[in-house]
Amino acid sequence: MITLASDFGTPYPAAMKGVLLQRTDARLVDVAHDFPRQDVRTAAFWLREVLPYFPPATHLVVVDPGVGTDRKGIVLRAGGHLLVGPDNGVLLPAARRLAGGADRLDTFVIDERTLGPVEPTMAVESVRESATDRPLASNTFHGRDVFAPAAAGVHEADIDALDSLEWLESGSVGVDLEFPRATIENERATGEVVVVDGFGNVITNVPGSYLDGRERVVANGATVPVGETFAAVPVGDRLATVGSHGSVELDVNRGRGDEAFGLVPGDRVVLEPASPTLD
Amino acid sequence: MITLASDFGTPYPAAMKGVLLQRTDARLVDVAHDFPRQDVRTAAFWLREVLPYFPPATHLVVVDPGVGTDRKGIVLRAGGHLLVGPDNGVLLPAARRLAGGADRLDTFVIDERTLGPVEPTMAVESVRESATDRPLASNTFHGRDVFAPAAAGVHEADIDALDSLEWLESGSVGVDLEFPRATIENERATGEVVVVDGFGNVITNVPGSYLDGRERVVANGATVPVGETFAAVPVGDRLATVGSHGSVELDVNRGRGDEAFGLVPGDRVVLEPASPTLD
Amino acid sequence: MITLASDFGTPYPAAMKGVLLQRTDARLVDVAHDFPRQDVRTAAFWLREVLPYFPPATHLVVVDPGVGTDRKGIVLRAGGHLLVGPDNGVLLPAARRLAGGADRLDTFVIDERTLGPVEPTMAVESVRESATDRPLASNTFHGRDVFAPAAAGVHEADIDALDSLEWLESGSVGVDLEFPRATIENERATGEVVVVDGFGNVITNVPGSYLDGRERVVANGATVPVGETFAAVPVGDRLATVGSHGSVELDVNRGRGDEAFGLVPGDRVVLEPASPTLD
Repeated sequence: MITLASDFGTPYPAAMKGVLLQRTDARLVDVAHDFPRQDVRTAAFWLREVLPYFPPATHLVVVDPGVGTDRKGIVLRAGGHLLVGPDNGVLLPAARRLAGGADRLDTFVIDERTLGPVEPTMAVESVRESATDRPLASNTFHGRDVFAPAAAGVHEADIDALDSLEWLESGSVGVDLEFPRATIENERATGEVVVVDGFGNVITNVPGSYLDGRERVVANGATVPVGETFAAVPVGDRLATVGSHGSVELDVNRGRGDEAFGLVPGDRVVLEPASPTLD
Repeated sequence: MITLASDFGTPYPAAMKGVLLQRTDARLVDVAHDFPRQDVRTAAFWLREVLPYFPPATHLVVVDPGVGTDRKGIVLRAGGHLLVGPDNGVLLPAARRLAGGADRLDTFVIDERTLGPVEPTMAVESVRESATDRPLASNTFHGRDVFAPAAAGVHEADIDALDSLEWLESGSVGVDLEFPRATIENERATGEVVVVDGFGNVITNVPGSYLDGRERVVANGATVPVGETFAAVPVGDRLATVGSHGSVELDVNRGRGDEAFGLVPGDRVVLEPASPTLD
Repeated sequence: MITLASDFGTPYPAAMKGVLLQRTDARLVDVAHDFPRQDVRTAAFWLREVLPYFPPATHLVVVDPGVGTDRKGIVLRAGGHLLVGPDNGVLLPAARRLAGGADRLDTFVIDERTLGPVEPTMAVESVRESATDRPLASNTFHGRDVFAPAAAGVHEADIDALDSLEWLESGSVGVDLEFPRATIENERATGEVVVVDGFGNVITNVPGSYLDGRERVVANGATVPVGETFAAVPVGDRLATVGSHGSVELDVNRGRGDEAFGLVPGDRVVLEPASPTLD
């Protein structure tokens, strides 16, 4: 099984699939191709949250603002999973979760020159004669020309003998990415908005346990109820809840939390106990 | 074969796919994940129109504004098909069509506690130690934590012995959903806009047969030609036609009918015979 | 393997998949379903660029502004691939590339009447009794009712004996589509914008070789550097590069080239040598 994730929209992922299917019969599963363009951080968050639900698989990830520079392509081996993509940090948070810790990760670096060019199926002559004199490899689409063939290659190889692939060698990660942890002092949590999902739910990095035993909480100055579900409050009302990622979310029942709270990714979030009520 | 439909956008459906693929090798087919958010009615319409074209399959449907409330999760057995989702009516119109009538439907209720938690593949310790102390089940993402494992479970089970699954028991539907029928009196049809599709075609509930033998019709006061195809009128012109769903559509050739007619879902539609012409 | 491409958005492609899966166990791969509505030209470009990366497959393409008119449905046999869709030119640029030249293409015309109706799985009686008296074939959704069954049919047939299918007969293409070539005279290239991709990259028809040996170029009057990669210029700066399609692209590093250059598809593009600099 090979999963695919990118910020490509369409139809670029289809070119990657064609290249994969020239080399493997694996099942292909899309994770997402509409990650915010060139937003390594948001993609890294979602991959960390989603990939652990998959059985062991090869994960092809291309969110790659540095395509064509000297940033390397890497393969990470993590608890039976393989992650393939650019060495810009996008793979790391997911890989650490899949491996059960950074120290259990194995890193391999892709040698693009040895990997060899991707050739479309038509005769080379016909390409040369076509309206555009297409090169056989590009500097701007490594998803198709480097990462897809690499993903197919490691998928078809023995996961325990990746060193035997001549275009892959053991190495180390060049660029790391870690999400900051929230701090909790004197019952006051200081964290940040990690992402906003498509429903407008504001996903923070404050551990869900902060809400344990609280009926209300003050979020950036606004007192809101704590609910186990969106429906704990009337339609259109705000609440704090433990989201499906295990952290505190600031939401609106059947509405958009980001608009109601005025928050975007990266914003600081301060949660405080609500003062006792008299009821 | 398992089809998936939701209002999740991305990447949440990928988490459902991971959970499914931990439990089954079935082919997965996306119906749509961009249904209007929390719009049970529109999703129900499209499922009724699309699912009957599939061979017998399990259909996982999650449009679920009541997630986390006491609304139940259900499985419907309908003519060789199984439908899995929330008991909010979204499954019913499709299920009745697939079964060939409401009386041929079998309903089962999911017992979430017996179904058991969904666990991501990494060691539980690593989760507990991670930035967010994730719970093993959520109150806000039953697509991943309840409906996906239930869909995999019934798909792998004997369709004629679903009662033998200990987390499933025979029951009845709590919330029904039926689309109103148009009325036709004295050659005047009174109906409504059911949905507007992505092309802007206005899909009504007036039976296509209303247009039989008519060359023109008055739609909400505007006289428009009746055409068998969009191209029956010049580019940019309005027309009434029998759409691919069998009902009357108000369209524009290569344009948007919703804008030209000023109609949105739920609006009333009155069709009347056009007065005879002298040609 | 059957690929699918359309301008349908969702959920219409799922109806096509249901029809296909009633008739074949082939792997289904989406190319794109968000091509600009009824824009035959843009779809034709992307198919030409993407399909050659696939192994031999059947390609079902429905961008069909003339649906329901007397435009024919065709099947093209091209170098081990089959392309199925409307005879409006959308298949031709891809088919010529796959075949290695127009003279190596075989054309077949679909006889819709002989192909037979698509029937949904539920009993016909239940349809007749339903809210809308659905016809068994439509004039507006040939993707589901004509092209999907035709694609499944040719996919399951012997590719070298398509004539033996009674609903298919040898014929010729009615509508061709060719992209204009740029002209280059006295080191001045005159071409046009073919498409703008989702990143805002402006893809022209000027061969990439025009940039060989140049450090800067004048694009529609603006002098911009020539770079091998986006990252050859600072973030936010414009550049000309050889795109992944082999032709000249006008781009912005981590920004939108279409906005920076003020260009849309069809616009004229003139490239000239930049005057020498003194450094």
